[in-house]
Amino acid sequence: RLNEQRLLGALDELASIGAIEGGGCARLALTDEDRLGRDLVVGWMKALGLAVTVDAIGNVIGVRAGTENLAPVMTGSHIDTVRTGGRYDGNYGVLAGLEVVRTLNEAGVTTRRPIAVAFFTNEEGARFQPDMMGSLVYVGGIGLNEAYAAVDKDGAAVGDELRRIGYLGAAKPGALKPHAFVELHIEQGPILDEEKVQIGVVESVQGISWTEYTVTGVSNHAGTTPMRLRRDAGYLAASVNLFARKLAWEMGGDQVATVGSLALRPNLINVVPNRAVFSVDLRNTDEARLQEAEARVAAHIAEVAMAERVEVEAKVLARFEPVIFDAGLVDRVEHHARALSLSTRRMPSGAGHDAQMMQRLCPTAMIFVPSVAGLSHNVKEHTEAADLAAGAQVLLNVMLELADT
Amino acid sequence: RLNEQRLLGALDELASIGAIEGGGCARLALTDEDRLGRDLVVGWMKALGLAVTVDAIGNVIGVRAGTENLAPVMTGSHIDTVRTGGRYDGNYGVLAGLEVVRTLNEAGVTTRRPIAVAFFTNEEGARFQPDMMGSLVYVGGIGLNEAYAAVDKDGAAVGDELRRIGYLGAAKPGALKPHAFVELHIEQGPILDEEKVQIGVVESVQGISWTEYTVTGVSNHAGTTPMRLRRDAGYLAASVNLFARKLAWEMGGDQVATVGSLALRPNLINVVPNRAVFSVDLRNTDEARLQEAEARVAAHIAEVAMAERVEVEAKVLARFEPVIFDAGLVDRVEHHARALSLSTRRMPSGAGHDAQMMQRLCPTAMIFVPSVAGLSHNVKEHTEAADLAAGAQVLLNVMLELADT
Ligand SMILES: NC(=O)NCCC(=O)O
Ligand SMILES: NC(=O)NCCC(=O)O
Repeated sequence: RLNEQRLLGALDELASIGAIEGGGCARLALTDEDRLGRDLVVGWMKALGLAVTVDAIGNVIGVRAGTENLAPVMTGSHIDTVRTGGRYDGNYGVLAGLEVVRTLNEAGVTTRRPIAVAFFTNEEGARFQPDMMGSLVYVGGIGLNEAYAAVDKDGAAVGDELRRIGYLGAAKPGALKPHAFVELHIEQGPILDEEKVQIGVVESVQGISWTEYTVTGVSNHAGTTPMRLRRDAGYLAASVNLFARKLAWEMGGDQVATVGSLALRPNLINVVPNRAVFSVDLRNTDEARLQEAEARVAAHIAEVAMAERVEVEAKVLARFEPVIFDAGLVDRVEHHARALSLSTRRMPSGAGHDAQMMQRLCPTAMIFVPSVAGLSHNVKEHTEAADLAAGAQVLLNVMLELADT
Repeated sequence: RLNEQRLLGALDELASIGAIEGGGCARLALTDEDRLGRDLVVGWMKALGLAVTVDAIGNVIGVRAGTENLAPVMTGSHIDTVRTGGRYDGNYGVLAGLEVVRTLNEAGVTTRRPIAVAFFTNEEGARFQPDMMGSLVYVGGIGLNEAYAAVDKDGAAVGDELRRIGYLGAAKPGALKPHAFVELHIEQGPILDEEKVQIGVVESVQGISWTEYTVTGVSNHAGTTPMRLRRDAGYLAASVNLFARKLAWEMGGDQVATVGSLALRPNLINVVPNRAVFSVDLRNTDEARLQEAEARVAAHIAEVAMAERVEVEAKVLARFEPVIFDAGLVDRVEHHARALSLSTRRMPSGAGHDAQMMQRLCPTAMIFVPSVAGLSHNVKEHTEAADLAAGAQVLLNVMLELADT
């Protein structure tokens, strides 16, 4: 059995890097704070005796040898956060992986297969798009050059930032092909908490569609310009926000739609904006319905753009189809949770995860624990200690079984 | 008759300070660019033999002596611009005033009353609120300390910025009480251009209502948070933008409503915003109708805030009732324009102007010239040279009559 206090202590220590008001973290990918977080976790990996490699997209993998030189059983997640993030999102999965290793070390257990704990670069997609970048490169979904070229809002590029923080490693991403991958994560949504279920057995991940729209209108005086003459870039952006809400209601509970980011220019009280740049995040567990949502947003934008006489450019920042996890592995997660007398619920993941990329490379599954009040990407993100420990114990048991088969 | 080429040359030279792409200017109030523009115009005033005083809010007044020591006839406007402003807004009125003086100097004419040319601080209100700050202080509408305490988005205060750029003068604002004030300005709207009229005889200025709203919601994950649980600060902001448009249509042609400024937090693609700060600019020539518009916006916000379970704080940034100019002086403007065989049209001003403050102190009127396509607060703001010259000639003739009575 693993040690709950040790796991909580590690979470606390990592959360102290980039700590922000309210108990949260700001460790955007490839910032100085991310580097400090990485250094801390790499130090822990080495102290546990893991063989650490950093690959060319900055993914870090620590391997514990098995008795046989087989493909490892891998777990892991990410340690980057959004700008006003919580302390569990990603971090929990990585540190629980290290706690699994620590427990095996203490018990003097050597598994047949090696065990690997990974953290992947820029899972959040908050600073650079697409999200899940490190794991996407790992499975060959995009090439290194494409990833290196991604820039943040200030024009800083992934390649340069990796070099700057000292995490542009030598290893080829994906060189180590796991036997299986199991990711432990907080749910980040309200379902387990509302239903008072301890373990979410994740069967799939929603499709994700991120588009950035750039609207060009005509700036003009707010006092003198009659409504009929306005070509207001901000008006179109606002209308998409309301349309997204309406669309999600109309399409029903599994469709979500969000305008999370918006910048106006010149952004002055008395000037009709001539430019708006905003994002639309659409998700659905069903690919056909996700495509329907995309088409309806595009049609709405075309219609308003015509009426307002503004021009709109669309840029796809991320697009991932829904992913179905390995049925056998999902069963094993459910089995081990029940064997520990934990309540379970099969469910899709609303958030994107590195596991959804890893499924392209090897049998993959995920374990969810409850998020209090469904809060995530919020400094108040919280999961009860007992739930954190329960999830980690399920991970340990699943990995032990996998590592001996 | 004044010299059109000289006036155009001066406009060009001033526009070269803070010049931005597309032919426009960025000389936000009390920035380094504003200081350079002020220095240039003060130099011109001195070269013309004007006695220059700078007052404690940074208003600059150049006085040309008359044969008698009477209250002066004053003209003037402002030289600050919005962030993506044109080259005529404000600047034209100030430089035409100097061209009037230059013409009198060359003709060796001495008027009975002194003639004064002023430029007032922070008319635009783009960096600091309220707008028309310098002239408002000049007429005693707000005190110096209140004005000094106004801060921009980065927390810089008017008092400190005045000192920093060397324009915190010794004179008491309003010490010089004019006999009359006449402001020449571009229309900034489409009416004169659409109707092919040369001179706008401005009878009044619309009421202005600027409010900044700060919305506090709950940040949460865009992928996992069902629509029913969202408390999206950005959604409320967007709904106000659309409501403002609808309100203006419903209330008819003289009501305008604009959301020009908006900032979201954390402003990330996959995070429901927990904070939105946005402005609403409402204008109406009728005070009762302006109050109706304000009340309807407030009611809409209260309703959406309740449904979305977000909190909203409102802060009035500027509030000016409609202003009626001096009827006799308005007649004199019309008379002199017609005497020059120029076509005229009586009209209200859609924009706020220093003249609307000066009307509290002395008989005041305004002269408008056409804005091509009604563009203003836009780098492409343009007025034809012949119209610029015609407006300045009307100003000269009106001032000459006033200065000899
Ligand atoms: N788990 C998580 O928050 N991933 C970030 C990508 C997303 O927006 O789903
Ligand atoms: N003339 C002018 O643009 N004034 C700025 C204040 C306003 O927004 O009306």
